[in-house]
Amino acid sequence: MFSASDTWTALQRVRKARPLVHSIVNHVTMNTVANGLLALGASPVMARTAEEVADVVAIAAALVVNIGTPSPASAAAMKIAADRAAALGVPWVLDPVGAGAVAFRTDLALDLCRRSPTAIRGNGSEIMALAGGNVTREKGVDSAHGADEALAAARALAARCGAVVAVTGAVDHVTDGTRVVSIRNGDPMMARVTGVGCVGSALAAAFLAAGGLAPLDAVAAALLVLGVAGEAAAEDSPGPGTLNWRLMDALYCLDGDMLAARTRIG
Amino acid sequence: MFSASDTWTALQRVRKARPLVHSIVNHVTMNTVANGLLALGASPVMARTAEEVADVVAIAAALVVNIGTPSPASAAAMKIAADRAAALGVPWVLDPVGAGAVAFRTDLALDLCRRSPTAIRGNGSEIMALAGGNVTREKGVDSAHGADEALAAARALAARCGAVVAVTGAVDHVTDGTRVVSIRNGDPMMARVTGVGCVGSALAAAFLAAGGLAPLDAVAAALLVLGVAGEAAAEDSPGPGTLNWRLMDALYCLDGDMLAARTRIG
Amino acid sequence: MFSASDTWTALQRVRKARPLVHSIVNHVTMNTVANGLLALGASPVMARTAEEVADVVAIAAALVVNIGTPSPASAAAMKIAADRAAALGVPWVLDPVGAGAVAFRTDLALDLCRRSPTAIRGNGSEIMALAGGNVTREKGVDSAHGADEALAAARALAARCGAVVAVTGAVDHVTDGTRVVSIRNGDPMMARVTGVGCVGSALAAAFLAAGGLAPLDAVAAALLVLGVAGEAAAEDSPGPGTLNWRLMDALYCLDGDMLAARTRIG
Repeated sequence: MFSASDTWTALQRVRKARPLVHSIVNHVTMNTVANGLLALGASPVMARTAEEVADVVAIAAALVVNIGTPSPASAAAMKIAADRAAALGVPWVLDPVGAGAVAFRTDLALDLCRRSPTAIRGNGSEIMALAGGNVTREKGVDSAHGADEALAAARALAARCGAVVAVTGAVDHVTDGTRVVSIRNGDPMMARVTGVGCVGSALAAAFLAAGGLAPLDAVAAALLVLGVAGEAAAEDSPGPGTLNWRLMDALYCLDGDMLAARTRIG
Repeated sequence: MFSASDTWTALQRVRKARPLVHSIVNHVTMNTVANGLLALGASPVMARTAEEVADVVAIAAALVVNIGTPSPASAAAMKIAADRAAALGVPWVLDPVGAGAVAFRTDLALDLCRRSPTAIRGNGSEIMALAGGNVTREKGVDSAHGADEALAAARALAARCGAVVAVTGAVDHVTDGTRVVSIRNGDPMMARVTGVGCVGSALAAAFLAAGGLAPLDAVAAALLVLGVAGEAAAEDSPGPGTLNWRLMDALYCLDGDMLAARTRIG
Repeated sequence: MFSASDTWTALQRVRKARPLVHSIVNHVTMNTVANGLLALGASPVMARTAEEVADVVAIAAALVVNIGTPSPASAAAMKIAADRAAALGVPWVLDPVGAGAVAFRTDLALDLCRRSPTAIRGNGSEIMALAGGNVTREKGVDSAHGADEALAAARALAARCGAVVAVTGAVDHVTDGTRVVSIRNGDPMMARVTGVGCVGSALAAAFLAAGGLAPLDAVAAALLVLGVAGEAAAEDSPGPGTLNWRLMDALYCLDGDMLAARTRIG
């Protein structure tokens, strides 16, 4: 049974272990993701060339592969890293940015889904596209479909891939195909800062790295931490510029009391 | 006749339509540009590889091509995207970062000028270089020439390319070769934050996407919004770190009253 | 004899000259580095493709080569830029991000060490790896070895390369192989913001560009400025999000009084 107190225990484990999280992340948000991991207490390393990703996976405690701003070269590196992680038993998270909107990304994400990700986190459109549904492409990397609409697709994708699937939006749903955890934290202004979803995928990798929870609960813990930190950051923020840096402060300061007071799950 | 009230009407149109702005932007400032578009109310998608740019242009409401940190691969993608935009009638904005300072960029920018941009926004040195003038190269991507000095070059470039040309600096001039709108908003500290000019080009794409104004007025509206937001952000800012995030808040909060009170045009 | 007052004189020289600093910097931190240089008063240009780096070095007052997120293409550009800088007498700084942790980076850093850098700045693990020592790889781009432990390695590397070597951490040591300056400013929270070390290397390039000090003193001045600005920014910061933008404000506002009051050297 997923809980705020287990999340707090897991967060303390992350901060103690400072897990090395190999982060292959798009060029737009890699700075934000690195800062999010550092604020949480993890240690990011952002290697993304085929010549070094296998070596980096070998020293990492987890891997996140975010396909935004892909190129043929980075796509090749992503596949090498994913295969190496699967071979070594390093947990890895797929973030299929823009799947469904652009064929090159849909194909890449589907290829990576077949390389045994531990978890997949995307918005409604992305998860529906990977599950084989028809999606509206006109929103680009933003979702034209809410998380609730995509929950059935998330269940199907989880069953097909043997992965935990998280579909995030106004409500975040995390499922292994059977069990579902739903997180109702967060704030709409978080969608006005680029990379908050990417941070969620990276935090999921950090919680998977720290161990002690089933994969579904580790991913849910990461998204709960992000949702609570994000809504705390959004309070009294006049706009997304303020929210952006307050989110980093909140990830750094988050404690068991704040989690207990704010958690809205189920 | 360009006005603050038309700008406010156009800004409301952007916020309502949330236009998808395909942004091919240099690696230094792409995060800032994405956040600037989100803060304004538009939806950025930052695809930049030849394998996907044509597909992304096809779903976008506008395109911005910013040539900073170019490579042969990204230069090829820029040309594909520009041609696709011209073929589909998608308005597109060229930001010729560093033209005049480095031959590779001057050549690339001149090539892109021939692919029917709707608008071109640069600093004095960049616009003078594209218009065929001799420029001082020693300032790199900063301008050695003020916007006033470059106005004649902007007129000539606009006439030659059939594009709106904006030359920005202490005063921003926007011209279609005949008419000129001059905007006297902004603050010198904006030049101490990387990417503010790049944000201006992206906002121009968003305003062109939203329609309802002639291209010259749409570009001027974007630069007026940026100038007003930037000077509001600069007030009481102890330095450029504060200005950076306050600019995002100001783009998010900007309203008709603030525009009416601050606008200095003509 | 290195001093706070010489550092203040040198900082004024940087602000007056606004030196053009060609910055080949990894994709994670290039925005932070550009903003750090602008906040200090220098002028960054971030060109990183083989087709243009030689031209950019030719107009630059200094070069910094930061090897994070390398690729074969960027590695080739780094070598061209380093050789051009050495040939033209443009001072250049090597930042060997991740050397010792990943073979591709260790090899690249060692290659660049042979191209006559003016200075090398890294953390303990990186400097020890370049000096030929065995290092713990499990921390990725963070250091498993403190600066004190690495001081002997720094001396040896300085002697071998004819370069100033700075090894940074809780204490920063700067040496030319004989003389050592040790700086005890800074704050542990600075390690929770990605790119602060990269900013240090870039500021070193700016101080080398401005001239007037021996290379060892120029590098020490840059690290003193960063340490003082960083600890001022960390005061009362609830977390690394706040520290990040306050650091930029502090670099912008730093003056002789603040330097005199805070400097802890020797």
